Amino acid sequence: MLDEKQVKKWIYYFGYGKEDAQGDPSILGNKGYGLARMSSLGFPIPPGFTIITEGCSYYGQQGPTSAIWDQVVAALKGLEEATGKHFGAGPFPLLLSVRSGAKTSMPGMMDTLLNLGLNDATTELLGHATQDFRFAYDSYRRFIEMYGSLIMGIDYHLFVAVMERMQTVEQAHDAAGLSLDALHTVIDGYKKIILDHTGTTYPQDPFEQLKKAIAAIFASWNSPRAVTYRRLNHIEDQRGTAVTIQAMVFGNRGVDSLTGVLFTRNPSTGARSLFGEYLINAQGEELVSGLVTPRQVTKEGREAIQDPQEALEEKYPVVFSELSGLAMALEHHFAEMQDIEYTVEQGKVWLLQARNGKRSASAAVKIAVDMMQEGKIDACEVLKRIDYEQIERLLHPTLDADQTIEVLTQGLPAAPGVVSGAIAFTPEEVEHLSKNEHVILVREETSPDDIGSMAMAVGILTTKGGMTAHAAVVARGMGKPCVCGAQAITIDRQSSTLVIGQTKMKRGSYLTINGTTGEVIKGKVATVRPKPFPEFVTFMGLVDQSKRMEVRANAETVQDATVALSFGIAGIGLCRTEHMFFHADRMCLFRKMILTSCKAARADILTELKVVQKSDFIALFQILDGLPITVRLLDPPLHEFLPSQDIAELALQVGLPLDEVTKRMAQLAEVNPMLGNRGVRLAITFPEIYVMQLEALFEAALAVKQVALEIMLPLVFDAKEVVLLKKIIEEVYQKTAPQIRYKVGIMIELPRAALQAAILAPLVDFFSIGTNDLTQTTLGISRDDGAKFLDCYQQKGLLQADPFVTLDQEGVGELIQMAVARGRSANPNLKIGVCGEHGGDPASIAFFDSIGIDYISCSPYRVPIAKLAAAKVVAGH
Amino acid sequence: MLDEKQVKKWIYYFGYGKEDAQGDPSILGNKGYGLARMSSLGFPIPPGFTIITEGCSYYGQQGPTSAIWDQVVAALKGLEEATGKHFGAGPFPLLLSVRSGAKTSMPGMMDTLLNLGLNDATTELLGHATQDFRFAYDSYRRFIEMYGSLIMGIDYHLFVAVMERMQTVEQAHDAAGLSLDALHTVIDGYKKIILDHTGTTYPQDPFEQLKKAIAAIFASWNSPRAVTYRRLNHIEDQRGTAVTIQAMVFGNRGVDSLTGVLFTRNPSTGARSLFGEYLINAQGEELVSGLVTPRQVTKEGREAIQDPQEALEEKYPVVFSELSGLAMALEHHFAEMQDIEYTVEQGKVWLLQARNGKRSASAAVKIAVDMMQEGKIDACEVLKRIDYEQIERLLHPTLDADQTIEVLTQGLPAAPGVVSGAIAFTPEEVEHLSKNEHVILVREETSPDDIGSMAMAVGILTTKGGMTAHAAVVARGMGKPCVCGAQAITIDRQSSTLVIGQTKMKRGSYLTINGTTGEVIKGKVATVRPKPFPEFVTFMGLVDQSKRMEVRANAETVQDATVALSFGIAGIGLCRTEHMFFHADRMCLFRKMILTSCKAARADILTELKVVQKSDFIALFQILDGLPITVRLLDPPLHEFLPSQDIAELALQVGLPLDEVTKRMAQLAEVNPMLGNRGVRLAITFPEIYVMQLEALFEAALAVKQVALEIMLPLVFDAKEVVLLKKIIEEVYQKTAPQIRYKVGIMIELPRAALQAAILAPLVDFFSIGTNDLTQTTLGISRDDGAKFLDCYQQKGLLQADPFVTLDQEGVGELIQMAVARGRSANPNLKIGVCGEHGGDPASIAFFDSIGIDYISCSPYRVPIAKLAAAKVVAGH
Repeated sequence: MLDEKQVKKWIYYFGYGKEDAQGDPSILGNKGYGLARMSSLGFPIPPGFTIITEGCSYYGQQGPTSAIWDQVVAALKGLEEATGKHFGAGPFPLLLSVRSGAKTSMPGMMDTLLNLGLNDATTELLGHATQDFRFAYDSYRRFIEMYGSLIMGIDYHLFVAVMERMQTVEQAHDAAGLSLDALHTVIDGYKKIILDHTGTTYPQDPFEQLKKAIAAIFASWNSPRAVTYRRLNHIEDQRGTAVTIQAMVFGNRGVDSLTGVLFTRNPSTGARSLFGEYLINAQGEELVSGLVTPRQVTKEGREAIQDPQEALEEKYPVVFSELSGLAMALEHHFAEMQDIEYTVEQGKVWLLQARNGKRSASAAVKIAVDMMQEGKIDACEVLKRIDYEQIERLLHPTLDADQTIEVLTQGLPAAPGVVSGAIAFTPEEVEHLSKNEHVILVREETSPDDIGSMAMAVGILTTKGGMTAHAAVVARGMGKPCVCGAQAITIDRQSSTLVIGQTKMKRGSYLTINGTTGEVIKGKVATVRPKPFPEFVTFMGLVDQSKRMEVRANAETVQDATVALSFGIAGIGLCRTEHMFFHADRMCLFRKMILTSCKAARADILTELKVVQKSDFIALFQILDGLPITVRLLDPPLHEFLPSQDIAELALQVGLPLDEVTKRMAQLAEVNPMLGNRGVRLAITFPEIYVMQLEALFEAALAVKQVALEIMLPLVFDAKEVVLLKKIIEEVYQKTAPQIRYKVGIMIELPRAALQAAILAPLVDFFSIGTNDLTQTTLGISRDDGAKFLDCYQQKGLLQADPFVTLDQEGVGELIQMAVARGRSANPNLKIGVCGEHGGDPASIAFFDSIGIDYISCSPYRVPIAKLAAAKVVAGH
Repeated sequence: MLDEKQVKKWIYYFGYGKEDAQGDPSILGNKGYGLARMSSLGFPIPPGFTIITEGCSYYGQQGPTSAIWDQVVAALKGLEEATGKHFGAGPFPLLLSVRSGAKTSMPGMMDTLLNLGLNDATTELLGHATQDFRFAYDSYRRFIEMYGSLIMGIDYHLFVAVMERMQTVEQAHDAAGLSLDALHTVIDGYKKIILDHTGTTYPQDPFEQLKKAIAAIFASWNSPRAVTYRRLNHIEDQRGTAVTIQAMVFGNRGVDSLTGVLFTRNPSTGARSLFGEYLINAQGEELVSGLVTPRQVTKEGREAIQDPQEALEEKYPVVFSELSGLAMALEHHFAEMQDIEYTVEQGKVWLLQARNGKRSASAAVKIAVDMMQEGKIDACEVLKRIDYEQIERLLHPTLDADQTIEVLTQGLPAAPGVVSGAIAFTPEEVEHLSKNEHVILVREETSPDDIGSMAMAVGILTTKGGMTAHAAVVARGMGKPCVCGAQAITIDRQSSTLVIGQTKMKRGSYLTINGTTGEVIKGKVATVRPKPFPEFVTFMGLVDQSKRMEVRANAETVQDATVALSFGIAGIGLCRTEHMFFHADRMCLFRKMILTSCKAARADILTELKVVQKSDFIALFQILDGLPITVRLLDPPLHEFLPSQDIAELALQVGLPLDEVTKRMAQLAEVNPMLGNRGVRLAITFPEIYVMQLEALFEAALAVKQVALEIMLPLVFDAKEVVLLKKIIEEVYQKTAPQIRYKVGIMIELPRAALQAAILAPLVDFFSIGTNDLTQTTLGISRDDGAKFLDCYQQKGLLQADPFVTLDQEGVGELIQMAVARGRSANPNLKIGVCGEHGGDPASIAFFDSIGIDYISCSPYRVPIAKLAAAKVVAGH
């Protein structure tokens, strides 16, 4: 007997009156824990036991030491007693299912080995004991298949080929149709495959089989695929996989035996009806393999797909009744939609596994909202159950799964959604091609110069740049799918061709990008765009009630603002006035203004620009109907408005001499534009542009009246700048619209501004933390250039996440906290928001909530995600 | 009588038993204060009084109100009593000298008006009283000249022309040689000039003369020239000018009268001998005007310039004896070399002014050191008396003042020294021209690509960039004169011409730049390079004893290190290893390494580069002989090593296909290189380069043995980087030189590194604050681009100083303080230095001392300045 005080407990039992209730998923794995749980609740579970997850690393270091093995042997004894069967011996040999199960289920790890314990002798014994030699040898061939492929590493398809050959010979539909003789031939064929490929055979000793199976499962934890999966999915807090060893029950013991899966609700639609499949006279892995077509569990399900085969509900109503009762009890108990594996052995129902079922995004929302309305869960739990990816999937077109696609390469999933279009490499090509078809703009990287063509394209693909490069930011803002940094792609401008590995594609060829996954796919594909539905609306209402922070949108066009308003916003948190110059006709005017050296000409152009900017503001103010709008005055360096090529054409376009344009462009060129003449610095060096913008703003406000106007100054680093700018604003205000109310605020996007917050705060009504620029300057990383090494940093474990996606809380976060604390101490009425990409990132949003930020602002299509994040943090998730 | 309790006291007396001892220079101006001081000490001073500086603004607001004027009239009464003369009346009319004098003497302000009180009537009275009508009318014509030009604004040269005409007529050498008749004719001529130019005449009423003179002096305080001078010289704490009114004494009263100046030591050499000049029968302004050649005061002085005219010492030994006694007494009293104005009237010596004498840089050092050795002042006072410009002037060639120059424009004084050379616009031109002559490289801005040609050129002139742009930094490091940001210059590449206003200069034309003043001068000029001398060595010894902080130099070549060692350094604080690749042959290798995609080829090149880098390190280690050297591993982005033009030539040079080079360059290009793939990031993305550098370092250290090696990592932002890099360093170390000791430190040059100091400090031995990059990131200003708007910021009063020259203490300074405090709290043994431009800036150095920085490091030629600053701050200056 084990002295539990002295000896480490490696084994937890379930299913035969010896459940160890103390286990949890981190110790028992999700599978072992679920079985123990069900067993203790009285569900019909085949008895068994679990080697705990800690065994995984112990095994890795020590090999199959006696400590664990002794306890396995002892546990087997107990299992023999509980089942009345004997492992490796008659009269009724005990067979085992051996399964892996980590805390989080993990593709890439070995999964299940069935019928372990069979060898030439025990198979004969099993035939005698069950009086069913066909069943016994069917089980045996299944064992050899699985042992051979999973433990000995032989290609599974070799076994399948033998089976299929025999089915052809015997004219059988499936394995169940084979005769005993045929099975013997198959088994001989299997043995020959193993001998041919390994020079040896599988162990006849069941204990040896078990030892090897345990070792293989533990080893699979560290297989390259499993390691990669954990890294990619940030699963790093786990000890290893557990191994669950369970007495076999048999779905392949004749026509009153079957095996199947069952969902308590429809995983695709979320509808409140059972959904499942089954196979008669079969074992579970056949269902998984996809080699045979299963039948439907419910009549409704059968009718939905017009399946001619009888549903379980129709063919075995008693079994169905028992099974559906068990399923509903499980759902009730776990208060979650259950995905159940079951086997019926000669009429007796056994549950082999129950877990929370995977489901589509819309099903997730419907089920959570339904369960809340059924009183099964509370609002807080609803918020917890819906994740950001689901919301994202609900908002963007997704790939229709029913098709074959050829993935050419993978870039960064920069802006979600799937879209197909003809390849265009230049703005001119976009303009030309987009007259007749959808176009995908493919560039090394984009610049503000490309905005027009980005607007015309249906999607953007770049070979450089990261998740927050220009292309990505603009694409997300526009709600267009975008894949960035697809480094395997080379663009050959001369021949207007892109090259990915061996594939060459000319301009005009069709390409698909999946901005949700980063995949670049050859040709056109079919997509589906999910529709909003009542439960989604209910869910978002719940979100709105739960969050503390306000959520605003970054928008500068009526189109963007309309999208944002449709998601329900507290206002516009960032209206980038320079975006208003991006239309082709305005761009030309703006360029002319920058390039002319004639003061009078510049004044005339500014007057023209004022007219268009004013009308844009009027349209925005009208649609906002009194909601606040934070208007940021011109921010980027002026040369960003100029094309980098075709200066001759530019000169022609703006009607200025080429040498004058060349000279002016040289004057404007900057080595590090991000740290150059931009933001309020433009108001110091070119005051007339800001004055024009202010006039347009105040005149528009005066025209609309119902406006909550907030004027925002970018790139401030010193109080003197604010004092000067406030004076300029006040002068224009007094001159144009002294009866309109307005607020003035500044971006906190330079470290010095954060440090100086106490001096800046009393001068303004609000701070808006510009986390993009603040990250760039605090870390010294240009987001346009960072992709080149940030990838490398992440691979080498130097960075957990891209700091332009998820806020660097330690560094940038400390500066923000400083700005908040110092700002509020000096001006208790100060309102503090966050604009910039991090305003739409859940991890960052949780941080912003924790430090008392008043509102976040993000791109329109990100609003629901941001809201959910703001709600989740309040709910404590 | 004045009731001093009720009435504001505008007047302070001196020289007639009524000195007001309470005055100080800010109230009395430097002139009035000096006179009051001398008077109270018993020196022979003509009596007078001073209208205090506060009168200046009062006068400006109120006009000549009775409050001040009444007190002037009352004071005049006292003066009449003290002198026995009468203002505007006989028998002996009182004449006045009226002089301005602010706390700091100031060119651009009106200076001196003599003989005030003369008119047609009082001149006759004066002739009668002195029995010398020639003297009286000579004084009158002097009065009219000065009143006409200074008060009435008539061109002085018009009067001079009349005088000179008359001297020609009378064949007189000077004014003293004119007859009385001639003087009458001159005075008539003067009166006509005034009438012709103003339509009126000067006031005959002496009180009116005085009123106007006072008003004019007060008004001159706000003349544009005076205002500009104050702004440029940061003189902003002053109330205004005082007006000193003093009884005239006459150096023009015959051959026993004279006037002159006297320095108590030689202002040019600092020698301990009197130095001065005098004019017989003349008034002081003649000396100033430079129209006549004065005689020497001492025999020694006369002999030195081989002047045939007798010295004062020879001609008037009694006067000389009295005067030299007074001079030495003054020097003794003020413990400073004095610049004395004196007049001898009929044998009686009067002192008109004594002030600390201006002197050359070398004289300043010699005098201060001599005086210390004479026991007149202490070491602290010596430190106070020598300023940075003087040290700078002692180190760099300066313009020979004895020549006429044509200043074409003014840029920024980026690296001190004067140099002439032929204009070259490209590296190729430099290479070509420099074979035969000195060359000045003229570029819009420079890049690392230009290093070779900068080394070949004698000076650098750029049209863009600020005091810390690449050109400036490199030039200072090389000790070469440099003028940056000369925006008025346009370079026309096509015609190889530069244009400044109307002047066009071709390639090869001669140009001179004065890096000390920023002047760009046409043609060649003569320069003088001061030599070190014993007192300078003594002075620097004193500096070394006084400072707390260590001073190191930034150097990477034996040449630089030798210069630095000659100034006495505590080690090399920054050895930028990339500079070692700047020689043409190494550059080619390095480029090839960057550009080749063949791994094996790259490894071969790195091996070659290691050889040269190792030999460079050996040479440096040897010359340092055990002094510490901080070696910074590769810092700049790789593409900085590639030329921006002539890619075809580059391909040829490195022997790679053009399309491969083009492709690779596109891959390496960055939008914001300052925030790109550089610093330790290179060690993450291209580990082999750092490994090569480390091998070279350790192997060199092993070869030399006596080495205090400090390895420094640039651009760190996170502890994980340091951990990884330390591992790499340790691996190379164990493999190459495990018996050598070394330290590891990091640059603190990103805000995040400063914030994370407590986490970083325990990992390293030292921090080196990189203030250049820290300023760029904290303020979000690229130093290469900032010049464009920083000028504008300074003009509009938004910035006191260029933050790349003088540290921004509020913003960047707070981060540095944080880094110091957090770093030391986590690692008490942490050594903290500053490298970067601010390490050589006195104002910044004072701050670094105040926050407990251990050492500063600057370019070799800046070392003496840095030391002096470090000493001054300890001495409390």
